[in-house]
Amino acid sequence: MENYKKIINDIYLEIKNIDDIGKVARYIPELATVSPDNFGVYITTIQKDSFGVGDCDKKFSIQSISKVLSLTLAYRFEGIKLWDRVDVEPSGNPFNSLLQLEADLGKPRNPFINSGAIVVCDVLVSHLKNPKKDFLDFCREIANNPTLNYNEKVAESEKITGYRNIALCNFIKSFGNIKNNVEDVLDFYFHICSLEMSCKELSEIALFLANDNFTTHKGNKVLTNSQAKRVNAILLTCGFYDESGEFAFRVGLPGKSGVGGGILAIHPDKYCIVVWSPKLNLKGNSYKGMLFLEKFTTKTTSSIF
Amino acid sequence: MENYKKIINDIYLEIKNIDDIGKVARYIPELATVSPDNFGVYITTIQKDSFGVGDCDKKFSIQSISKVLSLTLAYRFEGIKLWDRVDVEPSGNPFNSLLQLEADLGKPRNPFINSGAIVVCDVLVSHLKNPKKDFLDFCREIANNPTLNYNEKVAESEKITGYRNIALCNFIKSFGNIKNNVEDVLDFYFHICSLEMSCKELSEIALFLANDNFTTHKGNKVLTNSQAKRVNAILLTCGFYDESGEFAFRVGLPGKSGVGGGILAIHPDKYCIVVWSPKLNLKGNSYKGMLFLEKFTTKTTSSIF
Amino acid sequence: MENYKKIINDIYLEIKNIDDIGKVARYIPELATVSPDNFGVYITTIQKDSFGVGDCDKKFSIQSISKVLSLTLAYRFEGIKLWDRVDVEPSGNPFNSLLQLEADLGKPRNPFINSGAIVVCDVLVSHLKNPKKDFLDFCREIANNPTLNYNEKVAESEKITGYRNIALCNFIKSFGNIKNNVEDVLDFYFHICSLEMSCKELSEIALFLANDNFTTHKGNKVLTNSQAKRVNAILLTCGFYDESGEFAFRVGLPGKSGVGGGILAIHPDKYCIVVWSPKLNLKGNSYKGMLFLEKFTTKTTSSIF
Amino acid sequence: MENYKKIINDIYLEIKNIDDIGKVARYIPELATVSPDNFGVYITTIQKDSFGVGDCDKKFSIQSISKVLSLTLAYRFEGIKLWDRVDVEPSGNPFNSLLQLEADLGKPRNPFINSGAIVVCDVLVSHLKNPKKDFLDFCREIANNPTLNYNEKVAESEKITGYRNIALCNFIKSFGNIKNNVEDVLDFYFHICSLEMSCKELSEIALFLANDNFTTHKGNKVLTNSQAKRVNAILLTCGFYDESGEFAFRVGLPGKSGVGGGILAIHPDKYCIVVWSPKLNLKGNSYKGMLFLEKFTTKTTSSIF
Repeated sequence: MENYKKIINDIYLEIKNIDDIGKVARYIPELATVSPDNFGVYITTIQKDSFGVGDCDKKFSIQSISKVLSLTLAYRFEGIKLWDRVDVEPSGNPFNSLLQLEADLGKPRNPFINSGAIVVCDVLVSHLKNPKKDFLDFCREIANNPTLNYNEKVAESEKITGYRNIALCNFIKSFGNIKNNVEDVLDFYFHICSLEMSCKELSEIALFLANDNFTTHKGNKVLTNSQAKRVNAILLTCGFYDESGEFAFRVGLPGKSGVGGGILAIHPDKYCIVVWSPKLNLKGNSYKGMLFLEKFTTKTTSSIF
Repeated sequence: MENYKKIINDIYLEIKNIDDIGKVARYIPELATVSPDNFGVYITTIQKDSFGVGDCDKKFSIQSISKVLSLTLAYRFEGIKLWDRVDVEPSGNPFNSLLQLEADLGKPRNPFINSGAIVVCDVLVSHLKNPKKDFLDFCREIANNPTLNYNEKVAESEKITGYRNIALCNFIKSFGNIKNNVEDVLDFYFHICSLEMSCKELSEIALFLANDNFTTHKGNKVLTNSQAKRVNAILLTCGFYDESGEFAFRVGLPGKSGVGGGILAIHPDKYCIVVWSPKLNLKGNSYKGMLFLEKFTTKTTSSIF
Repeated sequence: MENYKKIINDIYLEIKNIDDIGKVARYIPELATVSPDNFGVYITTIQKDSFGVGDCDKKFSIQSISKVLSLTLAYRFEGIKLWDRVDVEPSGNPFNSLLQLEADLGKPRNPFINSGAIVVCDVLVSHLKNPKKDFLDFCREIANNPTLNYNEKVAESEKITGYRNIALCNFIKSFGNIKNNVEDVLDFYFHICSLEMSCKELSEIALFLANDNFTTHKGNKVLTNSQAKRVNAILLTCGFYDESGEFAFRVGLPGKSGVGGGILAIHPDKYCIVVWSPKLNLKGNSYKGMLFLEKFTTKTTSSIF
Repeated sequence: MENYKKIINDIYLEIKNIDDIGKVARYIPELATVSPDNFGVYITTIQKDSFGVGDCDKKFSIQSISKVLSLTLAYRFEGIKLWDRVDVEPSGNPFNSLLQLEADLGKPRNPFINSGAIVVCDVLVSHLKNPKKDFLDFCREIANNPTLNYNEKVAESEKITGYRNIALCNFIKSFGNIKNNVEDVLDFYFHICSLEMSCKELSEIALFLANDNFTTHKGNKVLTNSQAKRVNAILLTCGFYDESGEFAFRVGLPGKSGVGGGILAIHPDKYCIVVWSPKLNLKGNSYKGMLFLEKFTTKTTSSIF
């Protein structure tokens, strides 16, 4: 751990003040109000050692990173049947996602693009009595953190401008791969995306993906070891939209980014690390976050490859 | 190693006689003559322990698996400049590869789809004095095996029916991303694809991707450790066409398949394993090969995730 | 006219009992209840001579043929500004319509594909106080026929299963090319598509496209001559989805088909002719309708080419 | 005719000196050497009256306009069987032509896009003993003009830079829709595109498409009336790439453009008119040519709609 601490501190100082060519996401009005200067890092190891720097305790909108949690819960409910509804392949270019969805008859390419995450939400709406409350309870249990919550303003903000997601959900429903009301599914989806966590909290909630022996404080295993490995595999091939290959190439870890500027990366058997910096590169991933993690796995030689 | 041996033997016997729903590739006439019943497995560990079963010493056409070797040599020549010519992203659906190539202005999505492998060949034709001979020498050196060779009949067979690859190469040249004569590049490309190796030989030649300390018998390091990791990362995200996600999901190792029915899989820091069985699934990957490897990483818990 | 009568009668008898390989549209439940044996033809010349055979007085759901009328009214309101919202190009394959819409930033390729017709409806919702009533009044005036009406059951039927159109409308709205509420636009759109007319009524209402001197009984000109010619041009290049070229090639007249089995064809300066036969070919156009019209323009040598 | 003369003169003077925002085609080096100021117009009526202004007697590279002639000859040889090899549908966006070709299994959308014209050339290579000579003889006969010829420099110029066409031809051959050697087909194709004619000559050679009674000086009918009408129909829906709808909308005549800056337009039953001005708009069609013809059909009210 001392090694990690030093390396994290060094990289943090090295890139804190570099010229960040990224841009804060503006398409959700609420996100545009976040200061672009925020920069935090937090690591939690499977030994439960932990360390953070910068704005690592400030909550931010985790956005698409929440798709890891919704996938986890749906996988737990459905097991392998889940893969009849959503595939596990990278999607290639973003611009053809609707074309692919048409060619694939409404089965999204993977659970981390919007179409796939919406189908996962539909699965959860079918299983949960009170989807928003029950999902939150699930998150709080694995994080052992009763303060986790949605940001209603952000959820509302997405709902108002979310025409593309409404389009997507109706399009999938036209193929029969959405079972519930479009409104219910999207209300749930927008809430999940509005989850707020700090780097610290996010690195703790994802620990079950790094540690085969993880159980919640209530003694529950979140996923079987085999399932956790498979989620990591999908994260590696599909976690960064059409920059997934680049992240695997440069960083070499399973991970997931969100347009709020967070990146979660997991070393199976070692640690979870979270970086937050709101400015995004052209592909929609945190510019500093990717840079930090590339340097981190290089210096710690902890790529999985 | 004893553990691996037992597991390999068990799985080999378990699936040897299953109902193989795959089909032997027929588009290259020479490949169609291979008996579909061939089935071999060979593992070589970084400690140079090794073990094989079945037809593990019979030579077969490694086809696209050769793209790992051509990429390696081109990467060695060009370093990071190589990525100006070819990207490292999964390509999504096969059907839109030409569309992507057009949208990406002639820069292929990755070095393992045909377009990317052709660009890699163009890079090598620029660097090598006698491309076919020099490349073969390179392969023989890292394999420490002077018997490796092309199969001229297979090379000729591909050339005659290779209208799509001629189309691809001219299309990329129209964007300026092929520097040499189309005929020279494709002659080289078709020869590389015709390389013949046994499971044993293939598991030995790829060992440099598993072992950081690997040097050839002449004392040369093939790639830097960082480069080798990056090749593994691209293998994981792009090694199985539009089934790359599925292979990562089920097997959890970097790997590469060929239409000859071979699959090479690498555990960084542990081993190279090769399975050969000519019948291919609908996505063009060895049906038994994928099945074998899924069972193998599950029983040895040696997925990288 | 006598010449037309004889030719119409001859062709009617010739093909009435042929083996119709088409299929009745089933995606709107209400349409599936219509007898596939209906077959009617009606012609109205610019001299107001007219003639019909078969089921030419039975009302049917004109479906997409209504897009000619909504375009007409929107063109009248907006003039050339309308073409900032929707283009006048054929769309090629249907399967890439969403891809095109994305590439074209939400501007549909033409007013006769669903996306374009929805934008036209949005234009009308902006202009009309009571869109459904006002549009009906417009139709009744140019047809001089106060009995024209929507079929509420069909409109309802489309609304319930219209997930793709909801998707389309939200998708276009995400680009800013829908100004009103999605619900209002689609409610209007579904009603327009549910308009019911007989062959006779349809041939009368479209006469303004054939006759430069047409005025309504209230003395209003529907479109300027130049505008009417341009609507005919769009009908010729875009009126039959991805079979537009085929219709121009075989029939040689501007025209529009609907999934209810109706086809309207116009000879500028001569006549409007309507054929109705519910069984559709694979491209969604009336099988007998196309056959009838091909024979009709051949025998009357009245193709515009 | 006096009416046409005056209108042609008026429009010629009106737009001769306008600010032409088009650009001369540069992708074929030889074309880039032509003066952008050339501007000629020539009309020939079915009564064989004729009239020209400006550079109407200067020869220019007719480029894709030659596809009308090659289609004509192939149609004459094959009759309706030709449509098994090439379709008659507009192609939508240019960017997806290869995607369409793949989806359509190597059958081009129409004979006026490059892929379709190449298939037409393949048909001719199968039929003609000396394709280049025989095709030229055919052109000379219908034009009654023994001076018509290829421009070898332009043909050579295209061959050298024609990687996309080589790609296209090989791609189609991979589907089996090219029967002859790729080299032979493309050599023929590049020669056809290099045909040189003046506005006058071009308006005369196409007269058979306007005049049902046309026979060559040797007494041969070029196409049956029905075939000629069908060629006109394809010209209208497909003659201007992805601006075909726009040309139908603005001009209202069947026509064909070439990147040399020529436009041929046909009024069935009235006339052929040719405009030449080398600067092209963004879609690759002569800017002044389209403007001239729009004004011409408006003032003469001779749109076919």
